[in-house]
Amino acid sequence: MLWTVIAAALVFIMHLGFATLEAGLTQSKNTVNILFKNVFIIAIGIISYAVIGFNTHYPGDFNGWFSIGSMIGDLNADGGDTFGYGGVGLAMTGYGDFIFQAMFAATAATIVSGAVAERVKLGSFMIFATLLVGLAYPVVGSWHWGGGWLGGLNGGNGFKDFAGSAVVHAFGGFAALACVMLLGPRAGKYVDGKIRPILGHSMPLATIGVFLLFLGWFGFNGGSVLSADPTYVGLVFTTTALAACAGALASIFVSWTFLKKPDLSMALNGILAGLVGITANADIVSPMGSIIIGLIAGVIVVFSIIFFDKIKIDDPVGAISVHGVCGIWGILACALFDVTDSGFTLVGQLIGVLAVGAAAFIFSIIVFGILKATIGIRVSPEEEAEGLDIGEHGQEAYPDFAPSSR
Amino acid sequence: MLWTVIAAALVFIMHLGFATLEAGLTQSKNTVNILFKNVFIIAIGIISYAVIGFNTHYPGDFNGWFSIGSMIGDLNADGGDTFGYGGVGLAMTGYGDFIFQAMFAATAATIVSGAVAERVKLGSFMIFATLLVGLAYPVVGSWHWGGGWLGGLNGGNGFKDFAGSAVVHAFGGFAALACVMLLGPRAGKYVDGKIRPILGHSMPLATIGVFLLFLGWFGFNGGSVLSADPTYVGLVFTTTALAACAGALASIFVSWTFLKKPDLSMALNGILAGLVGITANADIVSPMGSIIIGLIAGVIVVFSIIFFDKIKIDDPVGAISVHGVCGIWGILACALFDVTDSGFTLVGQLIGVLAVGAAAFIFSIIVFGILKATIGIRVSPEEEAEGLDIGEHGQEAYPDFAPSSR
Amino acid sequence: MLWTVIAAALVFIMHLGFATLEAGLTQSKNTVNILFKNVFIIAIGIISYAVIGFNTHYPGDFNGWFSIGSMIGDLNADGGDTFGYGGVGLAMTGYGDFIFQAMFAATAATIVSGAVAERVKLGSFMIFATLLVGLAYPVVGSWHWGGGWLGGLNGGNGFKDFAGSAVVHAFGGFAALACVMLLGPRAGKYVDGKIRPILGHSMPLATIGVFLLFLGWFGFNGGSVLSADPTYVGLVFTTTALAACAGALASIFVSWTFLKKPDLSMALNGILAGLVGITANADIVSPMGSIIIGLIAGVIVVFSIIFFDKIKIDDPVGAISVHGVCGIWGILACALFDVTDSGFTLVGQLIGVLAVGAAAFIFSIIVFGILKATIGIRVSPEEEAEGLDIGEHGQEAYPDFAPSSR
Repeated sequence: MLWTVIAAALVFIMHLGFATLEAGLTQSKNTVNILFKNVFIIAIGIISYAVIGFNTHYPGDFNGWFSIGSMIGDLNADGGDTFGYGGVGLAMTGYGDFIFQAMFAATAATIVSGAVAERVKLGSFMIFATLLVGLAYPVVGSWHWGGGWLGGLNGGNGFKDFAGSAVVHAFGGFAALACVMLLGPRAGKYVDGKIRPILGHSMPLATIGVFLLFLGWFGFNGGSVLSADPTYVGLVFTTTALAACAGALASIFVSWTFLKKPDLSMALNGILAGLVGITANADIVSPMGSIIIGLIAGVIVVFSIIFFDKIKIDDPVGAISVHGVCGIWGILACALFDVTDSGFTLVGQLIGVLAVGAAAFIFSIIVFGILKATIGIRVSPEEEAEGLDIGEHGQEAYPDFAPSSR
Repeated sequence: MLWTVIAAALVFIMHLGFATLEAGLTQSKNTVNILFKNVFIIAIGIISYAVIGFNTHYPGDFNGWFSIGSMIGDLNADGGDTFGYGGVGLAMTGYGDFIFQAMFAATAATIVSGAVAERVKLGSFMIFATLLVGLAYPVVGSWHWGGGWLGGLNGGNGFKDFAGSAVVHAFGGFAALACVMLLGPRAGKYVDGKIRPILGHSMPLATIGVFLLFLGWFGFNGGSVLSADPTYVGLVFTTTALAACAGALASIFVSWTFLKKPDLSMALNGILAGLVGITANADIVSPMGSIIIGLIAGVIVVFSIIFFDKIKIDDPVGAISVHGVCGIWGILACALFDVTDSGFTLVGQLIGVLAVGAAAFIFSIIVFGILKATIGIRVSPEEEAEGLDIGEHGQEAYPDFAPSSR
Repeated sequence: MLWTVIAAALVFIMHLGFATLEAGLTQSKNTVNILFKNVFIIAIGIISYAVIGFNTHYPGDFNGWFSIGSMIGDLNADGGDTFGYGGVGLAMTGYGDFIFQAMFAATAATIVSGAVAERVKLGSFMIFATLLVGLAYPVVGSWHWGGGWLGGLNGGNGFKDFAGSAVVHAFGGFAALACVMLLGPRAGKYVDGKIRPILGHSMPLATIGVFLLFLGWFGFNGGSVLSADPTYVGLVFTTTALAACAGALASIFVSWTFLKKPDLSMALNGILAGLVGITANADIVSPMGSIIIGLIAGVIVVFSIIFFDKIKIDDPVGAISVHGVCGIWGILACALFDVTDSGFTLVGQLIGVLAVGAAAFIFSIIVFGILKATIGIRVSPEEEAEGLDIGEHGQEAYPDFAPSSR
């Protein structure tokens, strides 16, 4: 129980990680906008999870596909330090479970935030993020964690997604893909058939972001043990760290070989790729297994980023590759590297992650499509050129900044 | 006990939060000075709390109003894992309690630091901060937490201030008000009856600061349970997060409506306002209660900041509004939103918070006034124009910074 | 056990602290390089510790001087929540111990990274760091913590180095000294017998780094209790914080007196000096003892930095003074301030720390010397002038950064 609230605090810090990573990898004229969106997402995410999400996510009774929750009540009503839903008892109080799950909920919208950065209209994104986090995320999540149809897949063995490679990361990644397809690339990104890189404004901010995400992931994965069972928490910390580090080494090696230079952005993406890859299976693989999962994730993410750029899917922070593609990899790895012989199959895992990804994609195409057809989802070309900070907020990120560059 | 030291670590990180928030919201020519003050405050705060503060704060025996402590000795002398003062036994060791309380002590001076930024003379502030944190804070704190007169208020029901909306935040806020009144506004802030905004230099730094403060507040409030009782820690995490998020949403809505733009600074202040508001009552309100407390705090803080600017109280970071005004609101909310029927009254709460605020204000007027009359409290106009970094420290914040803005 | 994994997370964040501290104290044209090195070090550090380091560090059986380990296997094989090596049982699982120790391992290489910054050739440093962290660190560490000859020193009383003033910090500091001697100073640092300061590019980054290191040290020292024994964890938190704060105050006072200005860099180094000084003895000194240890460390570090600059040992971040010199001081302080009467002697302590320092120095001279004689260890003068970010990575730290300095 104590571990659960500490893990919630660690997952909370992931939101600062996302905010700084996304801000660092984008231009300084859009920094206030990025930061504002991340503040809004954590705020609306936690509030909406209390008002509707938690009781949608873990419904007392539903048909396996769809439920709508209500405002949380007195979650300590069970008394003592146990709490249960769906017939499963947990060694924690209801509030402890709520706050941990609430920190997860906002993550999906944050993943989208990075992909649509530097050209999305603020109001439209806020509406979309609210519906994604308040409605779509808990409904889809309930399929797996709330006693829904995914939990019963594969002949009772269920569908393995330990901490959310599918229901958090692939969910967010495929929602991001849908939004980017509707939104189109940033102006000047693809000119005359050529890819023109639009660089970020602060690699220290981006690096701070990835380290904070790495830190927070110890809570994300470690807390998903849902108890402080020492056997599993230590294992999960170890596999999580090894996969992240292996991902970094693989991305460094691949980028050095193919791009001729050891690329810091790719090293950072490699860490995240390894983390997303291990999220589904951190409690069932060996240390060597986690290293291999991380290495493969680190290779995948580099080529995936290059691929999406080639097909003109403009994702400023690589969110689709990191969360979507590596999320799928993590889910499949459950079947390949499981040392507990639980009988997870590639087919069962694939069905699960594709169902989640398709749900996120279709929801996003519909909702973001309606917004596009009505109030619009993209700022004007003039505002995009000037920057969203002035256009949307009337504020700059560095107004009184006067470095004395000698 | 374990939770207490972890909470102490979380509260520690609030000091980095204050440092980055204050640095971000001020001009880059004063950044070294801001950072230096925050390093000094945590250093002198913890040392002075060991030398005199702890045993002043929790005196073995005193008259209810005033005591002077001594250097802490062997706080493990009780043995085992319990510790007691004022007849109350705690499930922690003396050192555990000391380090948690020591992290709180420096907070009051940090609040003042932001309000007097960009024009206060360093040496004078260091003397003032030392006296505030080493003497005034523990004496006033002993009224409530040390078995003093405030604890006996309201017919034995005491005065409710769970984690310090009054004895930490309102205390710091009213000390800040006194200092700003003595110090006067920054040059160029109020010209010809008009308010000229003096902007900060880095919104990413400010945002990092607020996220770290939010994170640290889980320790500030959660640790104030003074045990890892699962029933309360989970509840306190939940109410703390909900109030912060509601505060952000309210400030966003109010600033969007009245200032026509969704303002990032106001969103950040809304988070802090909600956190200060919930600090007094996090363990006695319902989730819905905490949302309402946060929403109201988020509204209050915007109008309070505008109000103080109108009456020419120049507070660069909004500390008086966030900590002072919302501190009062949090104390009053104890009487309004208590679901435990403990009988706290608006009158009793108001007496308590005004007593604490008045003590901080009067102490500050006297001590800072004496400093003004003797060695001076304000740098020269030339130094203020050039920046305190060069004037006080002979250092710049960004000396070899050469961004390649394409 | 729970505390151990949380402490591991705190130690992890020290690596972000090192990354931001080193980046802040160096020029913006070398920032990507600094960040990349720190990402690489944590990645290779944890992976190599799994592949070879852990079982070298804690060998089942060796001659007291040298052992080579193998890949970690199923560290939960013991079952339950205990784990043992060298005949000592711990209240944690094998994975819990592994991840905590792995976070330590990378620290030694990170210390070197700062000292050789702004002119070291990336590939050579990566090879050196891999050998240092994968081979030298665990072999030397095994002398003390793995049941080797240092543990048996001083007539069975062993050699006291609680959390690693010698085996982590002095080890890293002396390795750094060897590397800097082989590498030579940065171009333009010592011209015509005069010392020309080469300033950093961001004091906020440096300050963030030191606060994160301070935070992480609670895990570094607190976790080294190797259990959540409340008596010791509370004491260790208290002595750690007091030493850090005393170090800051001493450095502020000394720099103000001798350099005429209160220097932020020195205040930050004072915090680190106090932390290194208390690392060897945090569990055996009194609060007053820890304050004195910190004060002396804060004085030492200022004069040590000035001394090394005088003899033209160019260490951009002061790593040799902070970790090497103050590491020695911390080891000696075990004999001077022990309140448990364990009989540690100055001579015994000195033998231990000199043995560790000499091993690190000799290993580094040989390995880094071979690299110098073969592939070279220093970038070309042209690359050094242009910056390593462009030269080694083809990336800039702040490419699209356009502050509007009014």
